[in-house]
Amino acid sequence: MKKNAFYAQSGGVTAVINASACGVIEACRKHSDKIGVLYAGLNGIIGALEENLIDTSLESDLAIASLRHIPGGAFGSCRYKLQNALDNDSEYQRLIEVFKAHNIGYFFYNGGGDSADTCLKVSQISEDMGYPIQAIHIPKTIDNDLPLTDCSPGFGSVAKYVAVSTKEASLDIASMAVSSTKVFVLEVMGRHAGWIAAAAGLASQAEGEPPHIILFPEIPFEREQFIALVKKSVAQWGYCVVVASEGVSYADGGLLSGSIAEDAFGHKQLGGVAPALCSMVKHSLGYKYHYAVADYLQRSARHLASKTDVEQAYAVGGAALEMALAGKNALMVSIERDLGKPYAWSLGEVPLKAVANREKKMPRAFISDNGFGITQQAREYLLPLIAGEDYPPYKNGLPYYPQLKNTLITKRCKQWVLC
Amino acid sequence: MKKNAFYAQSGGVTAVINASACGVIEACRKHSDKIGVLYAGLNGIIGALEENLIDTSLESDLAIASLRHIPGGAFGSCRYKLQNALDNDSEYQRLIEVFKAHNIGYFFYNGGGDSADTCLKVSQISEDMGYPIQAIHIPKTIDNDLPLTDCSPGFGSVAKYVAVSTKEASLDIASMAVSSTKVFVLEVMGRHAGWIAAAAGLASQAEGEPPHIILFPEIPFEREQFIALVKKSVAQWGYCVVVASEGVSYADGGLLSGSIAEDAFGHKQLGGVAPALCSMVKHSLGYKYHYAVADYLQRSARHLASKTDVEQAYAVGGAALEMALAGKNALMVSIERDLGKPYAWSLGEVPLKAVANREKKMPRAFISDNGFGITQQAREYLLPLIAGEDYPPYKNGLPYYPQLKNTLITKRCKQWVLC
Repeated sequence: MKKNAFYAQSGGVTAVINASACGVIEACRKHSDKIGVLYAGLNGIIGALEENLIDTSLESDLAIASLRHIPGGAFGSCRYKLQNALDNDSEYQRLIEVFKAHNIGYFFYNGGGDSADTCLKVSQISEDMGYPIQAIHIPKTIDNDLPLTDCSPGFGSVAKYVAVSTKEASLDIASMAVSSTKVFVLEVMGRHAGWIAAAAGLASQAEGEPPHIILFPEIPFEREQFIALVKKSVAQWGYCVVVASEGVSYADGGLLSGSIAEDAFGHKQLGGVAPALCSMVKHSLGYKYHYAVADYLQRSARHLASKTDVEQAYAVGGAALEMALAGKNALMVSIERDLGKPYAWSLGEVPLKAVANREKKMPRAFISDNGFGITQQAREYLLPLIAGEDYPPYKNGLPYYPQLKNTLITKRCKQWVLC
Repeated sequence: MKKNAFYAQSGGVTAVINASACGVIEACRKHSDKIGVLYAGLNGIIGALEENLIDTSLESDLAIASLRHIPGGAFGSCRYKLQNALDNDSEYQRLIEVFKAHNIGYFFYNGGGDSADTCLKVSQISEDMGYPIQAIHIPKTIDNDLPLTDCSPGFGSVAKYVAVSTKEASLDIASMAVSSTKVFVLEVMGRHAGWIAAAAGLASQAEGEPPHIILFPEIPFEREQFIALVKKSVAQWGYCVVVASEGVSYADGGLLSGSIAEDAFGHKQLGGVAPALCSMVKHSLGYKYHYAVADYLQRSARHLASKTDVEQAYAVGGAALEMALAGKNALMVSIERDLGKPYAWSLGEVPLKAVANREKKMPRAFISDNGFGITQQAREYLLPLIAGEDYPPYKNGLPYYPQLKNTLITKRCKQWVLC
């Protein structure tokens, strides 16, 4: 009897996570002789625990194809960390119970490092419980911090967004700096790894071209050095564009964004890195500043997705299904960069044991000697990842992002209350 | 003898102000039998005062054509308010001196309301001084607050950016809200008029679709009412997307963004509206929030420009030159919306006297009864302005935004020191 499959989106969504969903589901439909229905978890793994399973077979081929160009998580994602299986594996047991009830033999988990760990445990615990499930991890993270893959789907598009936004905003500042704003700070995501901030460096193609300063979480922040560089940039180029990772911190680990006090109501103020940096600039140098906080805009900007990223996101989805049908288990699909130029990539596989709970930071060789820019090596790594455009269709001036029906199947297990 | 022309960009730049420059210059080249060289002011009107005039005739046709798709101000803009001519017209006299020295008979000023006033005075004072210059104003402002024109070039593109960004970020939040961020605030430009925030309303196409709350500068902010609405939205739809104009203020005129105290260094903190609103939400409701501040990203996002806006920006530039050649003076080119559907527009002209120093706010009829959304009338006004895409060319994953040569001509007047 054909087994069914389960797919869930995990953690922060990206502009292209649905392209991976599209890849899995289309591959599943192609192999309908070998595999049954693909159920998607409503709101990620929570959907499996609560037995809220979406029957994707009720969606038209067209609707599934449209997933390739829709940002966000079409089935819902979640930030929910399963209990540590060593302490208490009741949640894992519940998962297996639900999967067994619906004849699910394949588990596709689309997420980052934490999710890889969950994926591995599903494989192990299901085997221990005598209902072995093949678990394949589909990589996804805008942070690009998954190990053993050349890059992570989701990163290329946020990188393109950040590079393009930096370039465009810089043209604005450059044209006004004589009489107006001299310092502009763009705050981007990246708590522990500076990949996203690094991508802004692609906007600069010649000496003096912005961004003039990039602040990485990997490099301890020193206020005096930063101020001196801003001053130098304004003196030399007339203005200064700074791109800062949200995770920039002092040598003692204290976040810049933590250095902000209370508002007029006595509430703790939600500092960001950008206002903190601007405050320093204003105080020390008196320059007029502006700042932007890209926040969710950067990771949902499907309108500006990287074609390379979309293709990779789609491909890893399809490959995950093919790997499962080939009998493989406890693996993550990886993206491998071919040696030589021009850029070419292929898919590979890595054992989940080697992936789970490891974080890939920017190599020091990717950061310029002074710690405030990227090297040629970083540039060569990053540039192919933002290559190509893949515009969504538009309708009345807006991207056309239709919603799926997301029909839940009838429950067969007892009710489950999330802890 | 053919007269030369002067063109300057004024105030905050837009994604399409260079399209207007392209329109003026291409029209000028077309009429080379009747008009001489078009000089552009380096950094706007400051360039005229300092006699820093760029000879645009040294740029290739291709370079000028590329202006149509380059954001920022290609010749530099400025925030510089000329002295009040009634008190002291020495700056105006200087302008006329420079224009006379270079045989300039046409003055094209590309800006907002303040610039319209300057443009009018150049016309009047040059006539008083016996060297009459025909002054034509080319409308530009992302704020859409110029009177007597259906819309202002620059607005349609920022409107599209804000509508698309709101739609995309909302999909992100919607897919995570069960276990993560429940409230998202997007801060957009607009100190006195809520046109830009209103455009976010286009992202909502059915009841309950985000944005759930729009905050306009035209509507006094009431904290309790806002909090109640956020709570209701989260209860009803699971999350709440707020789009706030930077100029939102209390009934007494106090800005929300002013209600923020000092940072840990005792420096005045640069509050924005978004963090202030999130602080209220956190304090009153405890929801997890995120916020984005679009800042310059919104007005430089040429990658997402409205095709309608690009076409209008280009057209008003060309029309300004045609009007000058037809002997007209002290006018602004206006955009007129034809009656009926589908949307169609044509160009008109309005006397600068009627334009200068007047601000067009959102009509109350465009804002929903409760003050937190837009009406069908607003939707019908706004939708055509974001219609169509007009992508810039890309090279290696980034928009191709080449720089002009910007060659300055030899000075003929004595030096001038800006006051």
